[in-house]
Amino acid sequence: MTDTQTRQETDSIGAIDVPAGAYWGAQTQRSIENFPFAERERMPLGVVHAMAMVKLAAARVNRAHGLPGDLADAVEQAAGEIVAGKHDDQFPLVIWQTGSGTQTNMNVNEVIAGRANEILGQGRGGKSPVHPNDHVNKGQSSNDSFPTALHVAAVLEVERQLLPALDLLADALDEKAKAWGDIVKIGRTHLQDATPLTLGQEFSAYAHQLRAGRGRIEQALPDLRRLAQGGTAVGTGLNAPEGFASDMARAIATIAGTEFEPAANSFEALASNDPLVQMSGSLSTLAVSLTKIANDIRWLGSGPRSGLGEVQLPANEPGSSIMPGKVNPTQCEMLTMVAAQVIGNHQAVTVGGLQGAFELNVFKPLIGAGVLRSIDLLAVAMDSFARRCVQGMEADRERIAELVGRSLMLVTALAPEVGYDNAAKIAKHAHERGQSLREAALELKLVDAETFDRTVRPEDMV
Amino acid sequence: MTDTQTRQETDSIGAIDVPAGAYWGAQTQRSIENFPFAERERMPLGVVHAMAMVKLAAARVNRAHGLPGDLADAVEQAAGEIVAGKHDDQFPLVIWQTGSGTQTNMNVNEVIAGRANEILGQGRGGKSPVHPNDHVNKGQSSNDSFPTALHVAAVLEVERQLLPALDLLADALDEKAKAWGDIVKIGRTHLQDATPLTLGQEFSAYAHQLRAGRGRIEQALPDLRRLAQGGTAVGTGLNAPEGFASDMARAIATIAGTEFEPAANSFEALASNDPLVQMSGSLSTLAVSLTKIANDIRWLGSGPRSGLGEVQLPANEPGSSIMPGKVNPTQCEMLTMVAAQVIGNHQAVTVGGLQGAFELNVFKPLIGAGVLRSIDLLAVAMDSFARRCVQGMEADRERIAELVGRSLMLVTALAPEVGYDNAAKIAKHAHERGQSLREAALELKLVDAETFDRTVRPEDMV
Amino acid sequence: MTDTQTRQETDSIGAIDVPAGAYWGAQTQRSIENFPFAERERMPLGVVHAMAMVKLAAARVNRAHGLPGDLADAVEQAAGEIVAGKHDDQFPLVIWQTGSGTQTNMNVNEVIAGRANEILGQGRGGKSPVHPNDHVNKGQSSNDSFPTALHVAAVLEVERQLLPALDLLADALDEKAKAWGDIVKIGRTHLQDATPLTLGQEFSAYAHQLRAGRGRIEQALPDLRRLAQGGTAVGTGLNAPEGFASDMARAIATIAGTEFEPAANSFEALASNDPLVQMSGSLSTLAVSLTKIANDIRWLGSGPRSGLGEVQLPANEPGSSIMPGKVNPTQCEMLTMVAAQVIGNHQAVTVGGLQGAFELNVFKPLIGAGVLRSIDLLAVAMDSFARRCVQGMEADRERIAELVGRSLMLVTALAPEVGYDNAAKIAKHAHERGQSLREAALELKLVDAETFDRTVRPEDMV
Amino acid sequence: MTDTQTRQETDSIGAIDVPAGAYWGAQTQRSIENFPFAERERMPLGVVHAMAMVKLAAARVNRAHGLPGDLADAVEQAAGEIVAGKHDDQFPLVIWQTGSGTQTNMNVNEVIAGRANEILGQGRGGKSPVHPNDHVNKGQSSNDSFPTALHVAAVLEVERQLLPALDLLADALDEKAKAWGDIVKIGRTHLQDATPLTLGQEFSAYAHQLRAGRGRIEQALPDLRRLAQGGTAVGTGLNAPEGFASDMARAIATIAGTEFEPAANSFEALASNDPLVQMSGSLSTLAVSLTKIANDIRWLGSGPRSGLGEVQLPANEPGSSIMPGKVNPTQCEMLTMVAAQVIGNHQAVTVGGLQGAFELNVFKPLIGAGVLRSIDLLAVAMDSFARRCVQGMEADRERIAELVGRSLMLVTALAPEVGYDNAAKIAKHAHERGQSLREAALELKLVDAETFDRTVRPEDMV
Repeated sequence: MTDTQTRQETDSIGAIDVPAGAYWGAQTQRSIENFPFAERERMPLGVVHAMAMVKLAAARVNRAHGLPGDLADAVEQAAGEIVAGKHDDQFPLVIWQTGSGTQTNMNVNEVIAGRANEILGQGRGGKSPVHPNDHVNKGQSSNDSFPTALHVAAVLEVERQLLPALDLLADALDEKAKAWGDIVKIGRTHLQDATPLTLGQEFSAYAHQLRAGRGRIEQALPDLRRLAQGGTAVGTGLNAPEGFASDMARAIATIAGTEFEPAANSFEALASNDPLVQMSGSLSTLAVSLTKIANDIRWLGSGPRSGLGEVQLPANEPGSSIMPGKVNPTQCEMLTMVAAQVIGNHQAVTVGGLQGAFELNVFKPLIGAGVLRSIDLLAVAMDSFARRCVQGMEADRERIAELVGRSLMLVTALAPEVGYDNAAKIAKHAHERGQSLREAALELKLVDAETFDRTVRPEDMV
Repeated sequence: MTDTQTRQETDSIGAIDVPAGAYWGAQTQRSIENFPFAERERMPLGVVHAMAMVKLAAARVNRAHGLPGDLADAVEQAAGEIVAGKHDDQFPLVIWQTGSGTQTNMNVNEVIAGRANEILGQGRGGKSPVHPNDHVNKGQSSNDSFPTALHVAAVLEVERQLLPALDLLADALDEKAKAWGDIVKIGRTHLQDATPLTLGQEFSAYAHQLRAGRGRIEQALPDLRRLAQGGTAVGTGLNAPEGFASDMARAIATIAGTEFEPAANSFEALASNDPLVQMSGSLSTLAVSLTKIANDIRWLGSGPRSGLGEVQLPANEPGSSIMPGKVNPTQCEMLTMVAAQVIGNHQAVTVGGLQGAFELNVFKPLIGAGVLRSIDLLAVAMDSFARRCVQGMEADRERIAELVGRSLMLVTALAPEVGYDNAAKIAKHAHERGQSLREAALELKLVDAETFDRTVRPEDMV
Repeated sequence: MTDTQTRQETDSIGAIDVPAGAYWGAQTQRSIENFPFAERERMPLGVVHAMAMVKLAAARVNRAHGLPGDLADAVEQAAGEIVAGKHDDQFPLVIWQTGSGTQTNMNVNEVIAGRANEILGQGRGGKSPVHPNDHVNKGQSSNDSFPTALHVAAVLEVERQLLPALDLLADALDEKAKAWGDIVKIGRTHLQDATPLTLGQEFSAYAHQLRAGRGRIEQALPDLRRLAQGGTAVGTGLNAPEGFASDMARAIATIAGTEFEPAANSFEALASNDPLVQMSGSLSTLAVSLTKIANDIRWLGSGPRSGLGEVQLPANEPGSSIMPGKVNPTQCEMLTMVAAQVIGNHQAVTVGGLQGAFELNVFKPLIGAGVLRSIDLLAVAMDSFARRCVQGMEADRERIAELVGRSLMLVTALAPEVGYDNAAKIAKHAHERGQSLREAALELKLVDAETFDRTVRPEDMV
Repeated sequence: MTDTQTRQETDSIGAIDVPAGAYWGAQTQRSIENFPFAERERMPLGVVHAMAMVKLAAARVNRAHGLPGDLADAVEQAAGEIVAGKHDDQFPLVIWQTGSGTQTNMNVNEVIAGRANEILGQGRGGKSPVHPNDHVNKGQSSNDSFPTALHVAAVLEVERQLLPALDLLADALDEKAKAWGDIVKIGRTHLQDATPLTLGQEFSAYAHQLRAGRGRIEQALPDLRRLAQGGTAVGTGLNAPEGFASDMARAIATIAGTEFEPAANSFEALASNDPLVQMSGSLSTLAVSLTKIANDIRWLGSGPRSGLGEVQLPANEPGSSIMPGKVNPTQCEMLTMVAAQVIGNHQAVTVGGLQGAFELNVFKPLIGAGVLRSIDLLAVAMDSFARRCVQGMEADRERIAELVGRSLMLVTALAPEVGYDNAAKIAKHAHERGQSLREAALELKLVDAETFDRTVRPEDMV
């Protein structure tokens, strides 16, 4: 939008110039001027598209409640175009606006009206024959339709992006768990050598962690499938016709292709954004899991010569601008940074969530944009991590065997035979003298060779 | 424990003096000396009692696996005494110790052995005939039994304390919602006058928010009912007999009187504490809800003369050391402070949760103590808030009627009649001239008196 | 960049196609493909421009260390163009990349080399005669130059954007404090009526809070003026010539127009990002202050008829899509949402800051981008809040007088005369009977009329 | 206090039974009953002692403003006894009370009055001749004296506990830096082998990080030395005599033995707790540094046989209840858990800090107790970590030499000779064939033996 030509639009504050080529009207223009943040701070398109779904649904439902058919047709067409991504440049508003999202709601209302009026041959923009409030927003308030759009957007992005990416990663980890089921390696607790397990078992824990995280995200979905729509300004449903809440939920579900239903308590649905806070919390727990997994993997791949070096990560790019030939665990670094941001976003969402007052929480754009950014970041990050790191990992069987062979903690298998205190003596003796466990045990005469060899077998300890 | 007399105990590091009267042994004593934090930093007793349940269960299960009956009897008796709270002064260790909780596990092992040996006539303390590791800890590692105890403690405190307190508060709010169902009041969005609703509707949102929070806590319970026990040191179950995990879960369930089962993946159960992180997240969401509710209530009770003053809170104590006769919303203040701490604890738990490495997360005491403190704080706070604030609240019907009567936002009901733009004109006109809506509407000739009186009726707008 | 034509570039991994029109080379292209995040996730331009300043400085310094003059000239010209914003579309890389920022460093190295080669008549791109590593990156590592750029960017944005915006807002608040110095109003503690103060005093607290916040940000600057440059890969300065650190700091200071010096400990400067964490903390404290101020202001402006209504906020836009004529405190909402995000960013930065390992913290892009976003958000938000909210606020003297006149807490002035307990009796008596304080005091015969009138004077209590 | 005998005390709410042996009065008793939290939730004694310093100072100052000498004497004696720790059991109130700390202020007022009355021969407790409000609290409000006590307590605990512990730890690290200045070791960036540095250089970074953290804490002190005292209820100083603020600051400074002055803006000093929020932020940054240091140290000590094993940590206790002979980095675990709690406390403090309203922030007990807990935890933790971990660490020179010797990243020293691309070829060649760098370099004929041997010398690269 770099038109120099303008046209005039009006709202209850008065008249204002808008770019001649824009579909939007006065309220959008005022918001552009009143909240001059950088372009990267724009309201996520996911919210805009979901708002357009709400408007499309409303046009369908409102036909039965007095919205003239020709206007409804034009509104449906315009809204449908937005859902299809045809007008993405018409939504210049930023996250940091009114806390109810009213301005984004009006942006959508105005663009739909502006486009519908064009469709109806009245030129771009304006309020006639289609009025942004009286027709496009009919039966709705920002207070119910904006949180509805946030729920719709969150559910769709979880279903379409996050869960598939999570599954891809969990599958990749599972595959490694299976492929490496026979590789016995040293266990590490407190970063100290511990009793052995298989590399497959280690990776099975990662896969399990992720699938448990999936469950936590799924648990947060049902509350997001309950829509505020129908509560209008304060939850009473004033100016919405009888049955509007359930008609709208049904229509939105059809358009979005997934399940939605009306909120059980419409007052709570406006006044609180707890379902989004909780989803953010589940995303944060997933971020915790991913950090653990990515940290382990980069440690396993540390080296190549002076680290643990039990696995080899794919070399996707040169690692250093000064150290030639260096390869770094960049996918792990990307993933753990994303995880940290998701944890931070959860804090932002929490601080916003707790500050609602009376009939409305006015931190909705912060909360919605925060949750959507977390979903998007995690989805891209997990997908990339699966494809560019996990799938290409290789186990270094030789190195792994070397490390497990020299460990002292295999002594644990002796404890049931000789008692904890004697077993501790053997380990200590070996450690101080740089001996193998077997040497120490026999030297101390605490066990005979046959018993030792029968008992201390890493492959039987996993 | 201020004995000046001591006896000697030993561990793999060597000999050490312990107070003669103490049941504990060398490892407990070492931890006391190595982690000299203040008494208020002690490991919560909930963890200690749950650890004793684990030991009691282990004695029962280990009979079938070679633990002599007389030793098992003594261990069971000693563990039972701890569960019953008879030895609370024997657990002086603090939260800030080894990250696996090994020292608290050994504290429990040593006290049980020390007491069992006394029962068996061998004097207090020592390792014979009952040895803290070989007998009390038989088939177990700190790495599986400590997280097991954290899960058991968290489930029990949620079931016994948190949920009953939450229900009490939700019921109290519901009761107000019912009692005040006919009181029409001004709605407030953005802190600005909005369309009316009933005070009962406002309180129904609070009750709904709380019950949704209950659901989120219940969702976090199943993962906590899955116990790490049986994984021993790294998840392989080394040194634990066949079937130990499920036998232990069954025995613990019987002792605790609630359901438990073995972890689905024992490696993950040691390496991650995600189920506690997620519970912490659900508690944090509940804290968000409680902040919103308590803030609303103190605003509703603001005044007595120069605030909103729609409700009156019970006067539990004098409010000011300098302003005589002042009464403050102290229960709201207590509740919102507790909520802030719970949100902070969630951050601590998150930071601990993400730093696990390989086979063990070594932030377990931080995580466990954090979650238990959050549960306890919320339970006491909600119970107190219900009894000392919500139950005693009174609505000021006169004040509420005064405030709703003068509002301009009743104009919303006119919008479907005269259109959004005209309705806005009426509100603006009235606001600028200090008129009532009716005066402004008639003066502007935008609606006739009969229509106005039929349409603008607060009691029909709720 | 939507070229379909490509050319080939190479790095130590091999050859790769890049868009023919791009200045960048192989490593940038690999990063684009390996980290497929959305465009809004791009590394902030502030970092890119600061990196280019580093390269410009390096070209100047490296002339004395063997960089041929013609190459140095071309590098300087190319770097200068980037600083001037002429190649902003050449930096497509996102925040979520390698944790050292190596890829952004290489993006800058490659674009400078690519442009310098063009300047030198060799066509766009390539590594000859100017090589991105050997010439542009000469004497540098990503590990020292990327954190240097983060420090430079943060200092410049604080100086150029944040502090001026903060000053504008503090001045606006001070102006109100002066203008309203004579308006006696009810004080509110615990949201309850308290003793009076002037509206000017109330606003003086806001201004003071902000100026204290300025001090906290200034305290965080000196550590940011210390640059890692010169430490190269691990802090030893390997491959950098003698004196490089101080020469570079001096050159960067000249280019940036503000003070910089070499880090006191170059190992710490790579391994930790504490100075950025601390700046983030100071920004978070500022966010705390701004939340308090914005919340107060929206409460003061609540109403217009059923709230406190002590001040009137400017009506910048229509407030509601359904409630005609409604005006909302949207600038307050924007500011408090921004504050919540800054607090969340601080959490993300903290989580990243604590995870450094050995010679390098690899959460640098997260940390840098988080701090810069917080600075930008706060700067725009404070500037807008000053201009569109504070400057246009009006006090409602009539309403303020009404609210202070009826308060019971003026009784505090009587306490030194009659004692705390008697004063409390008067307040309670008045409250229960709906009397004025004077009526109650005289009825209780606890003070005579003359004393009352002399003592209880709001204007003397401020 | 388990008296069964009681006496009656009264306040403006009415009469109430208190334990006969207690010094406290009605308001303390009411708080005990209204906030039934566990004993471990008690207000920190540091706050109580600092409150008593305030009362002691007030008795001194109030002599000149009408407080009779005999009463002042008794108040001074009683307050002095509390400061000296003689009545610690008289302060049973918890953190979770009124948000202004009024109840703790009254607890102190009542105990002083109760004890002063006993001193004056009137029996324990009561309000005569010494009245808790009229005499002990004379010229004060909770709103100014409670935050004053929080500032005093925080400054004293920082000066007396935190900074000495920090210095001890920084010195211990510095000592290692010096002792290990000649040990050349492999550097690690991205956890990958990098160019070498000395172990001393690595530890110098830790020491530097800590001393920088000290600076950040010192920066937060001056704001804490500014006391709210003198603002009384809302900042106007109502009921406090002329000059009270500065007289009190001077008297408190004398008693506490460190500097204090009156707040520059008394309204801000009540309404905001930003100075404590900022101190909490500086403590959080310190926690970030400590996490980094402790994590590095446990990784350096990982093994003993299958980790990095470059240093050996002191074996303070047996490490495992199941793995005999295991020794764990328990001091590192304690320290990182403490750090996580401090970071969480900062979040709690932040959430409390942002919710102030008008003339008073009512999250003061949360904020004060949070900051004090963070100070105490860090102080004990750093002291213990210095004594029980750092001081006893030993470097394993043999292992370190082995690891640096085999690294490929020494190739970086060749880059200025052969160019980045050729150097990368050598490293890659060596890596793929398991060769040494020298073998690969000569095989590829990219450098001659003499040049290689002259250039690639770890000891020259540090």
